[in-house]
Amino acid sequence: MRSEPSDENLAAASKTLLATRPTAVNLRWSVEDLRGRLEPLPPAERAAAAYARAAEICDEDVETCRQIGVHGSKLIEDISAAKPGETVNVLTHCNAGWLATVDWGTATAPIYLAHREGIPVHVWVDETRPRNQGAQLTAWELGQAGVAHTVIVDNAGGHLMQHGCVDLCLVGTDRVTRTGDVCNKIGTYLKAVAASDCEVPFYAAVPGPSIDWSLGPGEAGRIPIEERGGKEVSEVRGLAPDGVWTSVRVTPRGPPVANFGFDVTPARLVSGLVTERGVCAASAEGLAGLYPEHARPKGSRS
Amino acid sequence: MRSEPSDENLAAASKTLLATRPTAVNLRWSVEDLRGRLEPLPPAERAAAAYARAAEICDEDVETCRQIGVHGSKLIEDISAAKPGETVNVLTHCNAGWLATVDWGTATAPIYLAHREGIPVHVWVDETRPRNQGAQLTAWELGQAGVAHTVIVDNAGGHLMQHGCVDLCLVGTDRVTRTGDVCNKIGTYLKAVAASDCEVPFYAAVPGPSIDWSLGPGEAGRIPIEERGGKEVSEVRGLAPDGVWTSVRVTPRGPPVANFGFDVTPARLVSGLVTERGVCAASAEGLAGLYPEHARPKGSRS
Repeated sequence: MRSEPSDENLAAASKTLLATRPTAVNLRWSVEDLRGRLEPLPPAERAAAAYARAAEICDEDVETCRQIGVHGSKLIEDISAAKPGETVNVLTHCNAGWLATVDWGTATAPIYLAHREGIPVHVWVDETRPRNQGAQLTAWELGQAGVAHTVIVDNAGGHLMQHGCVDLCLVGTDRVTRTGDVCNKIGTYLKAVAASDCEVPFYAAVPGPSIDWSLGPGEAGRIPIEERGGKEVSEVRGLAPDGVWTSVRVTPRGPPVANFGFDVTPARLVSGLVTERGVCAASAEGLAGLYPEHARPKGSRS
Repeated sequence: MRSEPSDENLAAASKTLLATRPTAVNLRWSVEDLRGRLEPLPPAERAAAAYARAAEICDEDVETCRQIGVHGSKLIEDISAAKPGETVNVLTHCNAGWLATVDWGTATAPIYLAHREGIPVHVWVDETRPRNQGAQLTAWELGQAGVAHTVIVDNAGGHLMQHGCVDLCLVGTDRVTRTGDVCNKIGTYLKAVAASDCEVPFYAAVPGPSIDWSLGPGEAGRIPIEERGGKEVSEVRGLAPDGVWTSVRVTPRGPPVANFGFDVTPARLVSGLVTERGVCAASAEGLAGLYPEHARPKGSRS
């Protein structure tokens, strides 16, 4: 808008931005929010309006995450109350922390609040292949905040759950359907199905803008799952002994690689959703109770 | 035995060898087999006897793996028969191939035989963090044999199963209890529980020496799960762009790392066991039917 505030460029820029992350729906929400506000304005006013609205969204996002923390930390408090003095072990996947949001994070907000309240909390940090957001971002973030944590490979969470080492799984989300199916970083479903098998509570932290009210029962399959480049799998980036950030190839030359970025955890495996308005069941009824203004699907006559 | 064939050294060497891999029981089987044969011999004859028996075990192992292939390839044939002309997609974890055995491999033997029979088979190769045996060994092995395959991160298998992209999960094992619980590389349980949820058949390839007849119902928890060094998780080895085999650190300096090597998949999640004597249910009855000589637990009076 600063360089070319025309209607054409507004449409083109929106399209480009949306294509960067097809799976996460909060991007669509914010792009459509901005576009809807900018279109009625004279082109000369659009850039300033976009900045102002972006700043508002930042502030809203901080408060949304903090409220997710307020509601979600009760889950941790309850577990702690049931085993006084013992550490509460939370398993998380990927990075849904303040590095991924403006502040607090989504899945991490309840952990940070519980930690500030003095509850002994320890986080199992899934490495989160192929991009290692857990090993690289979440581990760093938790370390900065002084929260006890242990990095594990994505393969390990099931074993830990089988052995009573996980009290709560808490993950973020890129898109939740109206009926509570949770799309999140690839591998989340594996943790959810193991949590269900081991009777470990599995919650997703869900900001309102990540709910896709257009997707009803059985429609999670319509969520586009981003497929990313194979090099993210075949090459691993890290710090070499000489201190240089280096990519090393971990596959033989040549094998085809598939790299799906996300998966969908069906609502039946989700113990509940932690939103900025409270905790609810992962169901149409649960979400409708907290977001009555969205409860009636578009086009519904009843 | 070549350098010091005494009884003392036989005991010490056995102990050292057993400590190298506490989880896999076929090592215990072979060490005890050797020790039992060497102990009655005069020390001067022990080294030659050890070599001779080791050569026998090699030959037996090849035949064991080939028979696992003969019995297991029928599973692939049956899937192929149900969708003629279409590719059969098998997911495997870690390396249970000819690089890990003498020839054929365990989990790979059915795949190699089916491939030789002309059945179109494609393998989803789990990367298998932290040691990347899938990405590095299984992918290479399958490539050498001309078997179609795709490397995926360990996180991806659930998503593929949810979308009908996996016809069969087939893994190896380090130890199977008398009642069919399958101990295998960490992360196997996550695949098994997802396979159960998605109604994908999940089989383990089990050579007789990997069955621990001393472990009965509910005793899988007595299998020692090897814990390995944290650097295997925090540092990834691969080929740097200059062609040098290099380790890069993927975690911030400092976070604690846990590294469990194996997990146990309960028999209820296992569709069947592929042994050198045939395919059986993952149960005491199933295994007893194929190995009647072991069917009565030691110390049992009935």
